[in-house]
Amino acid sequence: MNEIRPIEWANGTLRLLDQTRLPSEEVIVEAHGYLEAVNAIKTMQVRGAPAIGVTAAYAVAMAARDLDITDKTAFMQRLEEAGVTIKAARPTAVNLMWAVDRMVGIANSESDTNSIKQRLLTEAIAMEKEDEVINRQMGDHGKDLIPEGGSVLTHCNAGALATAAFGTAVGVIRANWENGKHFSVFNTETRPFLQGARLTAWEFQKLGIPSTLVVDSAAGMLMRRGEIGCVITGADRIAANGDTANKIGTYTLAVLAKENGIPFYVAAPISTVDMSLSNGDQIEIEERSSDEVTEFRGVQIAPEGVEAYNPGFDVTPAKYVSAIITEAGIARPPFNESLNWAVNSAK
Amino acid sequence: MNEIRPIEWANGTLRLLDQTRLPSEEVIVEAHGYLEAVNAIKTMQVRGAPAIGVTAAYAVAMAARDLDITDKTAFMQRLEEAGVTIKAARPTAVNLMWAVDRMVGIANSESDTNSIKQRLLTEAIAMEKEDEVINRQMGDHGKDLIPEGGSVLTHCNAGALATAAFGTAVGVIRANWENGKHFSVFNTETRPFLQGARLTAWEFQKLGIPSTLVVDSAAGMLMRRGEIGCVITGADRIAANGDTANKIGTYTLAVLAKENGIPFYVAAPISTVDMSLSNGDQIEIEERSSDEVTEFRGVQIAPEGVEAYNPGFDVTPAKYVSAIITEAGIARPPFNESLNWAVNSAK
Repeated sequence: MNEIRPIEWANGTLRLLDQTRLPSEEVIVEAHGYLEAVNAIKTMQVRGAPAIGVTAAYAVAMAARDLDITDKTAFMQRLEEAGVTIKAARPTAVNLMWAVDRMVGIANSESDTNSIKQRLLTEAIAMEKEDEVINRQMGDHGKDLIPEGGSVLTHCNAGALATAAFGTAVGVIRANWENGKHFSVFNTETRPFLQGARLTAWEFQKLGIPSTLVVDSAAGMLMRRGEIGCVITGADRIAANGDTANKIGTYTLAVLAKENGIPFYVAAPISTVDMSLSNGDQIEIEERSSDEVTEFRGVQIAPEGVEAYNPGFDVTPAKYVSAIITEAGIARPPFNESLNWAVNSAK
Repeated sequence: MNEIRPIEWANGTLRLLDQTRLPSEEVIVEAHGYLEAVNAIKTMQVRGAPAIGVTAAYAVAMAARDLDITDKTAFMQRLEEAGVTIKAARPTAVNLMWAVDRMVGIANSESDTNSIKQRLLTEAIAMEKEDEVINRQMGDHGKDLIPEGGSVLTHCNAGALATAAFGTAVGVIRANWENGKHFSVFNTETRPFLQGARLTAWEFQKLGIPSTLVVDSAAGMLMRRGEIGCVITGADRIAANGDTANKIGTYTLAVLAKENGIPFYVAAPISTVDMSLSNGDQIEIEERSSDEVTEFRGVQIAPEGVEAYNPGFDVTPAKYVSAIITEAGIARPPFNESLNWAVNSAK
């Protein structure tokens, strides 16, 4: 099977599989400099917390490469400015901030601008490879979560497209499937951007895992009827106490899961954990254009002039989360302890 | 203000405001015979439990009018066959069955076919007028439910378009507004058919009530943030114990409301109460075409060949329902008693 890889570095260019055009067209967009990479993040041509992190790492490497400055202090000042611009591309996924900080920290540790340029490119490539390794580790830790003959629901796209490869939540589902088990898979369409209908359904097709697409609001009925054995989603940012920011609608699925006695799992790399935040109320939630709600591919759905509110994410309080699957292992409540352990074991 | 009236009887023709074309176009479709009315129900040119009931009444009247039979027994046999066809147009909204049974019962009570024809047309017109009266009574009973400065969420379209006029859930919201109060209104887009984005948003615009449109999965976040003071929806069928079938996603909103300590109200005429069913598990849930999920206005969203499941309704167990607003008054738990009282008081 061809692995889905949404990000490719080739000949000094970042090549991104344009996720706004999937599944009808498989188009590559090229970012030749860091501002083009920032634009790809802003327009969601590349999306998903880990994929944004890897893209940001390449963006920092390109920003450094393209600086025509040899004085390290002046170079670092400009590189940090570029880092600020990259971090501002989207506010909720902390992997973006994490990747930029990691890259800038590494740049600081090098002695001259030439070695900074070389080292940053090496580091970005390493972070891309590392992301796949991490996702496969998460899959390995989570490969027994879905019982034979069971069923699982996922939301949005936390698949290979949201990462360098393999995926987080979809990676765990895949690992269970490759572990020889058979189970039912449901995925929500994920309005307004339809990452579930467009991207996750496409990934399950490519993986050969039979899946059933439903509108977001049908998940509750499926749970009440006993057709969902567990829920697995990704995350954009996890606070130290386990509160989890993820695609809008995740909180709803977690409440429904609790009400119906169904485990609710989050699969995310440790880079998604923001230990600087004691709880999820401090996570900035991106508000996106109301056009995503009132229009569909440029066609007006709602009456002209209707007001719409379009939060991109919501926060699921830790009390609804059964476990968080990381590359270090499966963190369980109390998350203040287990996430602290996971973060430290990854250092 | 011009009242929205989706159903008009004029010159022997049933004129329906085509709800599949709203809000971009206001087009009237004409049903000249009962099979055209059945088709309008099936294709959702007319939808909403009470509006389907009124349309079904006119359909029975047209079926009788167009029968070229004078023998009453033969006439009634054919009329009952037409009634079966009309009832089969959609399975979940009980108002359809209720209206057909009422019309056929009245036909039976007349002595000859000419008087049947006359009486059925008179009765259909009366049922249309009665529906508006009932909705205004519900509004009157519910006009103090939303506090000044509060907020309300509604789902799907339970407005004038779903009835002969005024609406059920939207009617209650309107009655609160006309009662001089100011409050925030949110409405869900209601995938897959977008009744909220297309129809309810359009009605609130026409009513001059400011409203904010959100995707279905954003309702949970709004509730958790304290931005929703109560939820009011319509219903397609209510069992004797208060279990309520309504548009897919209603159960989810009710669970979220309970979890966040928010009242969840249902507004529906007594014709929506099906006392023959002891609980909601016995309500047939319509499964609609998967194309509504995988396509948007004929454009494929999901990959070709993806399987989709598209239940049109879900059942909200009575334990999540704070009150049911009927024309007889507000029924509160235990619903076995209060609905029994409401049904008897309407007889």
